[in-house]
Amino acid sequence: MITYSHIPELRSALNASREKKKTIALVPTMGYLHDGHLSLVKKAKSENDVVVVSIFVNPSQFGPNEDFVRYPRNIERDTELANHAGCDILFNPSVEEMYPAGFSSYAVVEDISTVLEGKFRPTHFKGVTTVVLKLLNIVQPRIAYFGQKDAQQCVVISKMVNDLNLQSEISIVPTMREMDGLAMSSRNVYLNSEERKNAVVLNQSLQLAEKLIRNGERNPALIINEMMNMILSKNPTSIDYIEIVGSNDLEKKNTIENDETILIPLAVRFGATRLIDNIIIHV
Amino acid sequence: MITYSHIPELRSALNASREKKKTIALVPTMGYLHDGHLSLVKKAKSENDVVVVSIFVNPSQFGPNEDFVRYPRNIERDTELANHAGCDILFNPSVEEMYPAGFSSYAVVEDISTVLEGKFRPTHFKGVTTVVLKLLNIVQPRIAYFGQKDAQQCVVISKMVNDLNLQSEISIVPTMREMDGLAMSSRNVYLNSEERKNAVVLNQSLQLAEKLIRNGERNPALIINEMMNMILSKNPTSIDYIEIVGSNDLEKKNTIENDETILIPLAVRFGATRLIDNIIIHV
Repeated sequence: MITYSHIPELRSALNASREKKKTIALVPTMGYLHDGHLSLVKKAKSENDVVVVSIFVNPSQFGPNEDFVRYPRNIERDTELANHAGCDILFNPSVEEMYPAGFSSYAVVEDISTVLEGKFRPTHFKGVTTVVLKLLNIVQPRIAYFGQKDAQQCVVISKMVNDLNLQSEISIVPTMREMDGLAMSSRNVYLNSEERKNAVVLNQSLQLAEKLIRNGERNPALIINEMMNMILSKNPTSIDYIEIVGSNDLEKKNTIENDETILIPLAVRFGATRLIDNIIIHV
Repeated sequence: MITYSHIPELRSALNASREKKKTIALVPTMGYLHDGHLSLVKKAKSENDVVVVSIFVNPSQFGPNEDFVRYPRNIERDTELANHAGCDILFNPSVEEMYPAGFSSYAVVEDISTVLEGKFRPTHFKGVTTVVLKLLNIVQPRIAYFGQKDAQQCVVISKMVNDLNLQSEISIVPTMREMDGLAMSSRNVYLNSEERKNAVVLNQSLQLAEKLIRNGERNPALIINEMMNMILSKNPTSIDYIEIVGSNDLEKKNTIENDETILIPLAVRFGATRLIDNIIIHV
């Protein structure tokens, strides 16, 4: 595995691989790698010759009062984990490399960026789509891999790739979970032991929703209410949202129809830590 | 020359060329081709194997009260002219091909899109950068060619390409002029004979500015005032702007320094027709 911090050197290496007809994959991350990230790397490696993992804590996707500064970082550990999972090239640029002085160009996806996470983090997706577009342009991968845990991010990025005619394919990989069902996240390290225990309720509430739907419940309001009661019993600081939406258009469902695919995303705070999770259900 | 209206067919053709190591050029246009466009096609052909000319009157770069509907179109004549100038592939998509239902992703360049043209056409550059980004992604040219007549467009697109790490090079080609100096433009057909005669004053005013600067004048306000007097003598409907700015940052100059490169862009209406022109001066 080779690490690059500068775009021109990375591009030269990738062009050499392309000359040799190697297929190139990209796994964009903010580092502090966990098994969720590593499952993307392994899948990428099983489907491509050269796997590029980017590690870049992207300032433009954090709001002014969010956790950019204290976001966990450990490049030494990440290097070892990425290498072991099959990464060929680690791309670890500085903020100045990605956003040089005077930077002023952005990719924006309207509509679906303003709901759910977008309501609570109004500038978040502009930062996400911009950095992902940059990384796709720099690496020009055949396939880029994203985790289903960030469900709205997956929808927004797929929309951007489609609308803007990018030539990379987007592959969405299922969420990896801890033994007790908590979705893996770099932010889980923020949780104290009490919060960590309570956070399991998020996945449990999603399981409850699926069970209700499988048993024939078709009223979103009722399902959300049951989920809320369950989560509230574990003393969250706040529930930012629980919604039942179309899995592609993120539009709120008034009723659930047979044969459709719905997404139930949620964002809940335990202590100061904001966690997200979701489930996709083919009804 | 082959004409494509659909993106997948165009991509297949271009991928076949790339397989054969052919270099690909893009000349994006809105059609109604004149010698300015054709000079781009000829330059592209002299530097590349395969020249793609796109003809697409892009609705997203027209404001609600602008001339999208009456913008001149003549695809038969354009096809002949493009072919004769060396075009290999004409890409002539429909609005639905470029902006399918539900389209919602855009490229935006902040700051420099809001001055000059951006003040008078607030949504213009968002449409330009979005369609150019799409065309660059569809064609993936080694070089894309743009005319210097749209000076701010050249600066905005170059900024986007740089900020978003696009791999195409942007080549700016000098403005082609009619015998009497009027900058070639598809919109010149809107002018009646009186307006057409008067419009020559735009280039004359730019020549005057250059002469003043060559003679040592360093005060932008004074130069602009002389240009205004000259233009006003030809009964324009309005002068939208005349400015003296840095050629890269488009920032207004308070004084002109030796050795710097300045841009003098202007927009003036004769009758209902809005014309732009500019000069770049290495002082």
